[in-house]
Amino acid sequence: MSGNTFGEIFRVTTFGESHGVGLGCIVDGCPAGIEFDADFLQSEMNRRKPGARQKDSSGKEIFNSSVTARSEDDKAEVLSGVFEGKTEGTPIAIVIQNTSQISKDYSKIKDKFRPGHADWTYFAKYGFRDYRGGGRSSGRETAARVAAGAVAKMFLSQKGISIKAYTKKAAGIECKKFSLDEIERNSLRAPDAEAAAMMEEKISALRKEGNSCGGIIECIISGVPAGLGEPVFDKLDAELAKAMLSIGAVKGIEFGLGFEAADTTGKEDNDNMSASLGKIQFLTNNAGGILGGMSRGDDIIFRIAVKPVPSIFIEQKTVDTQFNDTSILIEGRHDVCLCPRIVPVAEAMAALTVADMYLRNLGSRI
Amino acid sequence: MSGNTFGEIFRVTTFGESHGVGLGCIVDGCPAGIEFDADFLQSEMNRRKPGARQKDSSGKEIFNSSVTARSEDDKAEVLSGVFEGKTEGTPIAIVIQNTSQISKDYSKIKDKFRPGHADWTYFAKYGFRDYRGGGRSSGRETAARVAAGAVAKMFLSQKGISIKAYTKKAAGIECKKFSLDEIERNSLRAPDAEAAAMMEEKISALRKEGNSCGGIIECIISGVPAGLGEPVFDKLDAELAKAMLSIGAVKGIEFGLGFEAADTTGKEDNDNMSASLGKIQFLTNNAGGILGGMSRGDDIIFRIAVKPVPSIFIEQKTVDTQFNDTSILIEGRHDVCLCPRIVPVAEAMAALTVADMYLRNLGSRI
Amino acid sequence: MSGNTFGEIFRVTTFGESHGVGLGCIVDGCPAGIEFDADFLQSEMNRRKPGARQKDSSGKEIFNSSVTARSEDDKAEVLSGVFEGKTEGTPIAIVIQNTSQISKDYSKIKDKFRPGHADWTYFAKYGFRDYRGGGRSSGRETAARVAAGAVAKMFLSQKGISIKAYTKKAAGIECKKFSLDEIERNSLRAPDAEAAAMMEEKISALRKEGNSCGGIIECIISGVPAGLGEPVFDKLDAELAKAMLSIGAVKGIEFGLGFEAADTTGKEDNDNMSASLGKIQFLTNNAGGILGGMSRGDDIIFRIAVKPVPSIFIEQKTVDTQFNDTSILIEGRHDVCLCPRIVPVAEAMAALTVADMYLRNLGSRI
Amino acid sequence: MSGNTFGEIFRVTTFGESHGVGLGCIVDGCPAGIEFDADFLQSEMNRRKPGARQKDSSGKEIFNSSVTARSEDDKAEVLSGVFEGKTEGTPIAIVIQNTSQISKDYSKIKDKFRPGHADWTYFAKYGFRDYRGGGRSSGRETAARVAAGAVAKMFLSQKGISIKAYTKKAAGIECKKFSLDEIERNSLRAPDAEAAAMMEEKISALRKEGNSCGGIIECIISGVPAGLGEPVFDKLDAELAKAMLSIGAVKGIEFGLGFEAADTTGKEDNDNMSASLGKIQFLTNNAGGILGGMSRGDDIIFRIAVKPVPSIFIEQKTVDTQFNDTSILIEGRHDVCLCPRIVPVAEAMAALTVADMYLRNLGSRI
Repeated sequence: MSGNTFGEIFRVTTFGESHGVGLGCIVDGCPAGIEFDADFLQSEMNRRKPGARQKDSSGKEIFNSSVTARSEDDKAEVLSGVFEGKTEGTPIAIVIQNTSQISKDYSKIKDKFRPGHADWTYFAKYGFRDYRGGGRSSGRETAARVAAGAVAKMFLSQKGISIKAYTKKAAGIECKKFSLDEIERNSLRAPDAEAAAMMEEKISALRKEGNSCGGIIECIISGVPAGLGEPVFDKLDAELAKAMLSIGAVKGIEFGLGFEAADTTGKEDNDNMSASLGKIQFLTNNAGGILGGMSRGDDIIFRIAVKPVPSIFIEQKTVDTQFNDTSILIEGRHDVCLCPRIVPVAEAMAALTVADMYLRNLGSRI
Repeated sequence: MSGNTFGEIFRVTTFGESHGVGLGCIVDGCPAGIEFDADFLQSEMNRRKPGARQKDSSGKEIFNSSVTARSEDDKAEVLSGVFEGKTEGTPIAIVIQNTSQISKDYSKIKDKFRPGHADWTYFAKYGFRDYRGGGRSSGRETAARVAAGAVAKMFLSQKGISIKAYTKKAAGIECKKFSLDEIERNSLRAPDAEAAAMMEEKISALRKEGNSCGGIIECIISGVPAGLGEPVFDKLDAELAKAMLSIGAVKGIEFGLGFEAADTTGKEDNDNMSASLGKIQFLTNNAGGILGGMSRGDDIIFRIAVKPVPSIFIEQKTVDTQFNDTSILIEGRHDVCLCPRIVPVAEAMAALTVADMYLRNLGSRI
Repeated sequence: MSGNTFGEIFRVTTFGESHGVGLGCIVDGCPAGIEFDADFLQSEMNRRKPGARQKDSSGKEIFNSSVTARSEDDKAEVLSGVFEGKTEGTPIAIVIQNTSQISKDYSKIKDKFRPGHADWTYFAKYGFRDYRGGGRSSGRETAARVAAGAVAKMFLSQKGISIKAYTKKAAGIECKKFSLDEIERNSLRAPDAEAAAMMEEKISALRKEGNSCGGIIECIISGVPAGLGEPVFDKLDAELAKAMLSIGAVKGIEFGLGFEAADTTGKEDNDNMSASLGKIQFLTNNAGGILGGMSRGDDIIFRIAVKPVPSIFIEQKTVDTQFNDTSILIEGRHDVCLCPRIVPVAEAMAALTVADMYLRNLGSRI
Repeated sequence: MSGNTFGEIFRVTTFGESHGVGLGCIVDGCPAGIEFDADFLQSEMNRRKPGARQKDSSGKEIFNSSVTARSEDDKAEVLSGVFEGKTEGTPIAIVIQNTSQISKDYSKIKDKFRPGHADWTYFAKYGFRDYRGGGRSSGRETAARVAAGAVAKMFLSQKGISIKAYTKKAAGIECKKFSLDEIERNSLRAPDAEAAAMMEEKISALRKEGNSCGGIIECIISGVPAGLGEPVFDKLDAELAKAMLSIGAVKGIEFGLGFEAADTTGKEDNDNMSASLGKIQFLTNNAGGILGGMSRGDDIIFRIAVKPVPSIFIEQKTVDTQFNDTSILIEGRHDVCLCPRIVPVAEAMAALTVADMYLRNLGSRI
């Protein structure tokens, strides 16, 4: 009800402020008997970490220049729900201690609402706010999502379902090529090495200005059987849209042709069908793999719009908690472009959504 | 769980196939003591009806050429929950009989999956399908949403909250002007009379070809107090995104700058704040009125992409229920552009979302 | 949230006041493909009706003297969710018109809180109340439960699960014998003809005094596979307890030995096990067929305590809506003992609970 | 869905097996701004601990002979949701490490189903079981409930609502006197010192035999305003019944007169009303403070039946995981009577229920 739980059957509840003791999640409804891969869980946590290093094409570790250099030691500890290497069917609690959250001086931002941040809205809702690093509104909250998403991926992989997200566009530069192997090699998580290099250059320049940029992430879900999704309010695309818009900084989502479909005709947009290969196939995928809110059996494809990082090192007009006009100049180290860090979060949320829809579909017919 | 219920506190459950006995909804969680305006309910139903006539600028009734000429007599009957003109706090059941759903010959489409429709996905999910006019996947299902949304609007109007949607773009033509009064005067529900005329012309041509077109709807929610929305998974924008993507034919949503935000910098995108007028104000509204998933107190603005009507009168390749390749030529009367009919549905879903979020926020602080 | 919905997957939402236009339910989450038996639905409705006649042992119709002589024409109309004789997987809406609810003079009770009724608590909650025959608090509300329960029974019968309730005790007289065939033959729905005759005599005497009496209903659920129920908060017995206590006039529930277990030792109470017959068996059933909140695979047995009908024709002290002391003398025709009418309601609620738990268990292991 | 979450608005999700790394809960939906009393939280944890010592009337610590001597160090650590001594409105995560759960030899019970335990039903549901000390079915699971209940009590105390449970009967001996101060002084948590002494004696004898006993707990909730509870399925008594039956070993519940009401007449059972003292009062409380599923404004009273501890040190017939008949002789240290340990758990569950119902009622009228 307070919105910290996601999913109906495969259900995660998260907790944690950026500078509290710790954060984490309870994953409930995961079927019993799934091999639990703790190393995979930690590797997913590491993908999300700020300052995460990627390996370049030669296997050399490279610094991820697009994101912040803060060090967060996101060690995921599993407290329950796993026995003899398998899920028990009971809740899986995962805790990440906030070990490196050193108390620091917040006096400069404590009483001011940072533009583009949730400071004012938290204050309006709760009557006060946890000003330490954004509190619950911090991007750090997504660590718990990634942990839960890793469990969902373990379940989905047993069903042959896989999820891949990547940066399609950043700082105004769009990928022209697609290489799956390239994605985790560059700091942008872009599937086009050349475009990634240009994005990095642009981002370096923005960093020097104290400015930031947005981008677009694309996500492909493969191996989903036809018929997942509930036909009226809980359509598969509706649930994915909620999942994605629940990620901070995401301002839009589109499936298949998306907004471009608004400019097409029915003749252009309709995906014709064939069974000539012995199974139902769609000759095109303008729909993004979903019809009537249910998966068609082919790839599900969507894109999300990511706004620029709101923490910029340029003076901005704002208001203080006494409701006086003032200005603010944010300090510290922050990401320039959120895309590469949102990629694993988007995958996690997609995994949670599909895992839930898979289980919800079990009782659809006798 | 099966996805026919929307909302947590202000909660609607709908039922009904296009050619069954009737359809409708139960609205649960509506507070007691709200004046129930049955005329308003019916007027909202009439706005959604196919073949609905609008009044032109001179007050003359005009035929809505963009939508189908089918006649549906959508009389909303209230069975419960209202006593002496006020809501009782008990469930409000509303039923709409399918009076004009004449049984007809479905033999031509009964065994084929219509491209762009939910025929195949329903079949994949349930093992068979209700082939009469789309069954539960029919656009007729939205009548129940509009009925429920009318109740939500009665509640919201007491809180000073109003919702207005309109066609921003259709058949490739975008509105350049904005006149609130114009919206319900033209058949497109566009706020720009000239653009509407051009859209109508284009739609006429498409109708002759047996083709169809898509468009974009914009929605503005005014009067929402700051702090509505739950900060993590159930963000106000996440819930609105789910609400909108749950409408058939909607392929995308964006808030404020939306996908354009992906190309901006933080300096451009951040909305600065001022309290000089004695209350918190945002100097721009690139965010669409939502920060950190909670309303800021100014207008909430979003746009949705509507795909072309999939029922086109042009032969298409498809598959039959025996999984053989075949072709299909749809007959009958259908809309060319769904935008004007989705406008009241989008308003209804927005109203349901905000009403629920309003009530969910009541316990946010002691 | 407002409590008019029951169940998580197999889920019913009910509506309707006793003297409104109609009442009914939406059954959502019923799997597709179940044979829908409309005659069975109506026969279940008829079992619940006041003034229902039973057949005596010779097949002769007898008047049910323990319950009221009011005539309610509870015709269940199915509006949706059934196609070609089978459930579609879509919501099944059932409406019962309040045809015989003649408007009458409520001036004597309109402004007074009837002792033992929900008049005061409704007033306290909503600020006013629907004084026509109890409004939503009327026993008539259970008609919608019985309709939904009939659908649940259709589902359960396909899984080999059956439910039987009966009056164990009424007016202080307890059944000593058990004959399944006897239950529907006498007006008390008691499995012991002799005890039933004594109960009827006692009830006749109470009716003359304008007084009423309570009783105990026992319910047996057979054919439930082992492992249904969720182990922590949503234990099978916890959900059944909620289901039963949600029926008006029910003041307690006990499983197996129940309150008697409080006086036993572990040695006496523990049910020992054997597999000598090739399957897991319990040598006794003190637990009522549930361990750790999950079904064991044998019969589930529980009893519920039913309070006397609060509508008595004897002057009582009470308070009016202006908060003045007053007295009240209720008129009209009312049941003396609710047990026989609650029997089908208890079965319906048990059926809804088990159907839901059956579906909830589908995802318990990979 | 998997039943590890309780409540709709004030909502707790628990996790943890008896011999895993730790257990705990996330309390979501607690309003912001409540003073968080960490000492009270720990004192509640201590009340539930096995081998807990009570203070006698002179303040001297006494050993609780009725319960086990195992030492559990139930230190509750708050990971999130509290800032500057107040609840933030964000999820409150509480973790209790299983510090004293030494790995031991389970070979004797690993492959056998203990009579009266959930061993068989877990096995039937999940296909295997966590045999270490009962896993998730262990009474240790209730530590998380008590932690969450402590937070609920903090909220309720601000609303003037208090909850008190005690052992009414144990080992066949019933309390005759009632002294609130006495409850926490004796090892049984009985409000009658003499009865408590007799219970202790009886329990000592049972312990020597390796046997165990059951009992009855009574609970009184004071200060609840009229109108809490939702009138149809989510009646206050229905939710309390679910809450109580969700506690392991509880086999029944009754409100007010409870099962005794089955033997009364309406004239005897109806509680008459008066407003002579300037407010609504009930002249008796046979209903247990609830009418039509909503609180009346006076004390809510109910009793629960607790079965004997199933772990007895007497040979019993059972079945092994290969489905062969066998016998079992349980070893180790166990409680003889669960009542005193269930008392704080019952209070916790009652507190969670009432806190949730309080918040659910906020939107009942405009």
